[in-house]
Amino acid sequence: MNVSARNLLKGTIKSLVVGVVSAEVVLEVAPGVEVAAVITKASSEKLGLTLGQDVYAVIKASDVMLAVD
Amino acid sequence: MNVSARNLLKGTIKSLVVGVVSAEVVLEVAPGVEVAAVITKASSEKLGLTLGQDVYAVIKASDVMLAVD
Amino acid sequence: MNVSARNLLKGTIKSLVVGVVSAEVVLEVAPGVEVAAVITKASSEKLGLTLGQDVYAVIKASDVMLAVD
Amino acid sequence: MNVSARNLLKGTIKSLVVGVVSAEVVLEVAPGVEVAAVITKASSEKLGLTLGQDVYAVIKASDVMLAVD
Amino acid sequence: MNVSARNLLKGTIKSLVVGVVSAEVVLEVAPGVEVAAVITKASSEKLGLTLGQDVYAVIKASDVMLAVD
Amino acid sequence: MNVSARNLLKGTIKSLVVGVVSAEVVLEVAPGVEVAAVITKASSEKLGLTLGQDVYAVIKASDVMLAVD
Repeated sequence: MNVSARNLLKGTIKSLVVGVVSAEVVLEVAPGVEVAAVITKASSEKLGLTLGQDVYAVIKASDVMLAVD
Repeated sequence: MNVSARNLLKGTIKSLVVGVVSAEVVLEVAPGVEVAAVITKASSEKLGLTLGQDVYAVIKASDVMLAVD
Repeated sequence: MNVSARNLLKGTIKSLVVGVVSAEVVLEVAPGVEVAAVITKASSEKLGLTLGQDVYAVIKASDVMLAVD
Repeated sequence: MNVSARNLLKGTIKSLVVGVVSAEVVLEVAPGVEVAAVITKASSEKLGLTLGQDVYAVIKASDVMLAVD
Repeated sequence: MNVSARNLLKGTIKSLVVGVVSAEVVLEVAPGVEVAAVITKASSEKLGLTLGQDVYAVIKASDVMLAVD
Repeated sequence: MNVSARNLLKGTIKSLVVGVVSAEVVLEVAPGVEVAAVITKASSEKLGLTLGQDVYAVIKASDVMLAVD
């Protein structure tokens, strides 16, 4: 499936915390660069996520803000 | 200002397209890794964005999805 | 690619309006039920969207609100 | 109240999972078509949500992505 | 219609900029406090928005970040 | 850090509920006007949030909907 989201960042799962409804997943997308995602516990289970797995972070361009120092 | 957004990715502006209301900004956050943002034209002007400028992509963890091949 | 987004609604493109940065795409996902999406013009072109095409609306569960009459 | 969100999908609550902060609500919006929402537990209680209740899924067009097979 | 969004801020429309797809609307929600919204041009027309009109900003709690100085 | 988000509302933390993954924070941004945010527990701890603290709600304009009575 090819998604309209402009941003697809490949990474490896470094941590996985699962709550009642939500799960927090942290990926390393480049050496020293991490991306955190909060998805539903149900999605986490559907995708069968585990530590060390290679996955993509998918981010819609309209959800990205910019900041300057 | 220290923001609760879990994801801060430093990058350099590679392209900038400005419409009537919105602006699309593409950053290179690592060699060969790009992140696209759609912000308001007004924000783009307030931040004084220009090609080649170093900026941060700021992304809330709840806006990140995951995908597996 | 298998995405964590809980909501995948199959539909047919009924209208397509393209601006400088953004594009609005309206799908019919069931008889008389439409879903509107705003994506970047760049994504619209990357996916090669055209009227009558079958596509999926992909929606993260945390982006869905509920309302009662 | 008339909302700017382009997408209003009427459905019936099929499941309801409540955590400490968040609640996950799954609606059937057409035969065999489900939409999952994650809202706050506080909103779930304010709306008095229960299984079998008729509610609307409200989705902003800029939160909808598209995907093609 | 009663919406699950936790945040409803009443305000008066101070400016309205309409593009091909999107419209930017700025409200004053308290003396000196403004909130900007980007919605579709179609929604802006459906709601019949005009300068000086009283409207509500509706914001899902999961779309709010926090920042400290 | 200067953020592209159009909306920065200064407020005081009135309540704080922490779950396994998420935290809900309610601010008073003007007398009688509250804004609720759901952020990750990890962000809440990183920012060291406490009752009575002055913080900013940061909201991207594309996450704001409008409603009329």
